[in-house]
Amino acid sequence: MLGLKLPTDPRWVNIAEKNIEEILVDHAYCEQKAASTCISLIVQYPTHPELVEKLTPIVTEEWGHFRMVLNELKKRGYALGPKRTDEYVVKLSQHIRKGNTFQLLDKLLVCALIEARSCERFRLLSLHIADERLKQFYHDLMISEAGHYVNFVDLAKSYYPEAEVKQRLEELLGIEAEIIQGLEMRADRMH
Amino acid sequence: MLGLKLPTDPRWVNIAEKNIEEILVDHAYCEQKAASTCISLIVQYPTHPELVEKLTPIVTEEWGHFRMVLNELKKRGYALGPKRTDEYVVKLSQHIRKGNTFQLLDKLLVCALIEARSCERFRLLSLHIADERLKQFYHDLMISEAGHYVNFVDLAKSYYPEAEVKQRLEELLGIEAEIIQGLEMRADRMH
Repeated sequence: MLGLKLPTDPRWVNIAEKNIEEILVDHAYCEQKAASTCISLIVQYPTHPELVEKLTPIVTEEWGHFRMVLNELKKRGYALGPKRTDEYVVKLSQHIRKGNTFQLLDKLLVCALIEARSCERFRLLSLHIADERLKQFYHDLMISEAGHYVNFVDLAKSYYPEAEVKQRLEELLGIEAEIIQGLEMRADRMH
Repeated sequence: MLGLKLPTDPRWVNIAEKNIEEILVDHAYCEQKAASTCISLIVQYPTHPELVEKLTPIVTEEWGHFRMVLNELKKRGYALGPKRTDEYVVKLSQHIRKGNTFQLLDKLLVCALIEARSCERFRLLSLHIADERLKQFYHDLMISEAGHYVNFVDLAKSYYPEAEVKQRLEELLGIEAEIIQGLEMRADRMH
């Protein structure tokens, strides 16, 4: 699954389904963070035309997903509820190297990995949960997130040599697997 | 014009037209800040359903405007370029009272005022600049920003007594006029 080295514990989807309110709230914030991160990258790298060009429509898509998740919450009579710390993203972001040389590479690849893991989780939800509408919803989102994974990796390749992107992606995939293994499996988190 | 107490110096539109690249770049960031501010409000007040409901589509609109401005830049062969400090917004935001009681009121009204001033400036551009396409572009955006002004004031009224909203709006309109008067008229700024 997009190079991920550790599949999600299959029990996650069962406990997630039993906590669909919490999962949807967490998911809404994942979409919000994805939109906000793309906006930040555009503001930080406005003189990188390919980056501005590629990330601008992704903001629209991610915010569209936020609205879709909000709608699923509303239909079930749930509200958005407070944002939680996203330990997975915090831990992964600690591996972004500081300084001009590699920061953009690492930022783009961390975004790619978050998309990849979301894609893997959405696939599990689309395959295993009972609610037919949500199955379709997560199927569609899975395809979108896979596209974003490719966008981020391609963008990295437009600024760094391909061999360097591949090597760092491989390193970060290893780090990502360790982070997933170290995180408690929680019923109220998408990651 | 939406209660603004000081009309823009009519010379602004002439100098703005001569610096359309700078004005468009500044405008793009105004739209980005508007989208980001609405996202922040949603994250800060997720348990305020009317706020989440009203601001979520505004993010989509503001980001759509960002993309439209980016397109106008691209057509002219210009790039986004670095973000600048927005002295107008910084000075206005200093009047947001801290603490739970009035912070939301002030935040919403400051957003309303920024929309009102943008609306006034877009109107000037739509009336006086020579480029026919940009005239129409700024006419359409003027209407959208006026709608957002109403949205923010209505939202304030859904959380605070109407008399209190009116009184604070009147105070902030006075402060806004002083800020505009105190700012140097710059050819490279929307505000």
